[in-house]
Amino acid sequence: MRKATETTLSTAHGSLPRRVAIREVGLRDGLQSIGTVVPTQRKFEWLRDAVAAGQTEIEVGSFVPPRLMPQLADTQQVLAYAKSLPGLFASVLVPNLRGAELALEGNADLMILPLSASHAHSLANLRKTPDDVVAELGRIRAARDASGKKTLIEGGVGTAFGCTIQGHVAETEVLRLMQALLDAGADRVSLADTVGYADPASVSRLFEKAIAIAGDRFCCGHFHDTRGLALVNVHAALQLGVDRFDASLAGIGGCPHAPGASGNAATEDLAFMLQAMRIDTGLDIPALLALRQKVAGWIEGEPTHGALWRAGLPKTFPFPAAA
Amino acid sequence: MRKATETTLSTAHGSLPRRVAIREVGLRDGLQSIGTVVPTQRKFEWLRDAVAAGQTEIEVGSFVPPRLMPQLADTQQVLAYAKSLPGLFASVLVPNLRGAELALEGNADLMILPLSASHAHSLANLRKTPDDVVAELGRIRAARDASGKKTLIEGGVGTAFGCTIQGHVAETEVLRLMQALLDAGADRVSLADTVGYADPASVSRLFEKAIAIAGDRFCCGHFHDTRGLALVNVHAALQLGVDRFDASLAGIGGCPHAPGASGNAATEDLAFMLQAMRIDTGLDIPALLALRQKVAGWIEGEPTHGALWRAGLPKTFPFPAAA
Repeated sequence: MRKATETTLSTAHGSLPRRVAIREVGLRDGLQSIGTVVPTQRKFEWLRDAVAAGQTEIEVGSFVPPRLMPQLADTQQVLAYAKSLPGLFASVLVPNLRGAELALEGNADLMILPLSASHAHSLANLRKTPDDVVAELGRIRAARDASGKKTLIEGGVGTAFGCTIQGHVAETEVLRLMQALLDAGADRVSLADTVGYADPASVSRLFEKAIAIAGDRFCCGHFHDTRGLALVNVHAALQLGVDRFDASLAGIGGCPHAPGASGNAATEDLAFMLQAMRIDTGLDIPALLALRQKVAGWIEGEPTHGALWRAGLPKTFPFPAAA
Repeated sequence: MRKATETTLSTAHGSLPRRVAIREVGLRDGLQSIGTVVPTQRKFEWLRDAVAAGQTEIEVGSFVPPRLMPQLADTQQVLAYAKSLPGLFASVLVPNLRGAELALEGNADLMILPLSASHAHSLANLRKTPDDVVAELGRIRAARDASGKKTLIEGGVGTAFGCTIQGHVAETEVLRLMQALLDAGADRVSLADTVGYADPASVSRLFEKAIAIAGDRFCCGHFHDTRGLALVNVHAALQLGVDRFDASLAGIGGCPHAPGASGNAATEDLAFMLQAMRIDTGLDIPALLALRQKVAGWIEGEPTHGALWRAGLPKTFPFPAAA
């Protein structure tokens, strides 16, 4: 996030950033959650169209073993293609040191190591304690430094607002783990409401403390729309100056524990909200809607989400730029 | 709205009300938008269950000519039944003096006269200019005062954030008309985003000015979820101390100009957001979800909305009360 300076718009309720980056996670968080395997060539087309629509940060895949996630088995090729697109900052999810080595080999701009603040969720999903993940980040940092590569390392603290297995997750534990990730060598940290348990008040409370700890190294909010609160949670974080959010086209993704429930914040809806607020996103919303239609066709039968594609743009669009 | 006193929770970003009233509009705004005619006895059952779930303010119908809106032709009986339920504050929409006379006859607790700030929308929908509606409110006030009844009069300024016919609606015009309604004798005024054009920044801006004009007589925000922003718009208004919002069970309602688009803020989702924020609503969310399921069955085939019913309550529910 940026410091409150000329880059923020003052309002009655805090300073909003003038510019916000939406990081597309549809190709990773979205596709990993659905059964349909999108062919590699179509992922290339998705990336091309996304860049043409103004997207500059895209999480292109995940270096998990292909047998566990066949949808993302082509991450190496997709990353290589993404790196060939000028102006695109390409990130990948890495579950461990082995994944990080592949990310370094592929010259990813950023690798994101997820950590689950819920011990129960961490053990169930990663078979590691959160502190094991912190230690892994230290090894990843050493590998990155030894490689001489410029790949940045982000520690993403998930289940930060609660978890479907253990329920409550203590703020103090979330913040302790975030500090530990920074201490272990993370270049940046982010917070994720993995299962849609956050609300605007808990976002304000936790993000304020996280920013106090991480400062400029706090980089992103990731909100699932499971209970319809993704955009309002973004709003609460925006008011603290957070200027990067994950979102997925058509809102694909979602929570495996709530079948049919909404997934990630929908990229096109989030871009619409921000532009309506006169916050610059650099995105071409009609082009995003066209890409959404294309992707929805590729994954026909899978649940998609979002409101704008159905309602259409208002008569007042395009919005004038901020004064 | 209440003044910022001990009834508000201080946060980093304004003071949130400690208690918020959700006014149910499903029986009016919801049912008028769909083809299915819900039988009167089922409306009675809806009212009973709503009151049992803690709802204390319900807009029970509209005194429009039955040939124009057969779905609401039983408003007189529904109002009479609502008045028999202890603790329920029953409101009706009245389009004109004739409707107001029926509301007075039925001892409604509140009658709401809608005014469209968009001249084009006002002429198309009501065949009156906004200033004609202001004059009608003056006549309604005179009739109320002459009747000796306690029925309150609310002037609801709609299309306050734009309109599907003329597009942009000037803030100055919205505020001029709100002032005119107060001057003509409205006990209260409210603002409505009739077509889903509002965003959190425009809500902050317009509501702040409206509250400066109307003070304690500013009573309610009404947001359509056409483009997925109803709850975030509520959040922006909450931060200004607004403590009453319209919503409809299952989000029924919606914009006739955007077929299939979401309708009103869904009562159950709004209640969930507020309770998650530790704002008291007095509502029993599981009971609301049960009623939602019943109503959705009565209007089978009609579009319903909302996220919570699909995802279910989180493991952290019920939320502890505010400290």
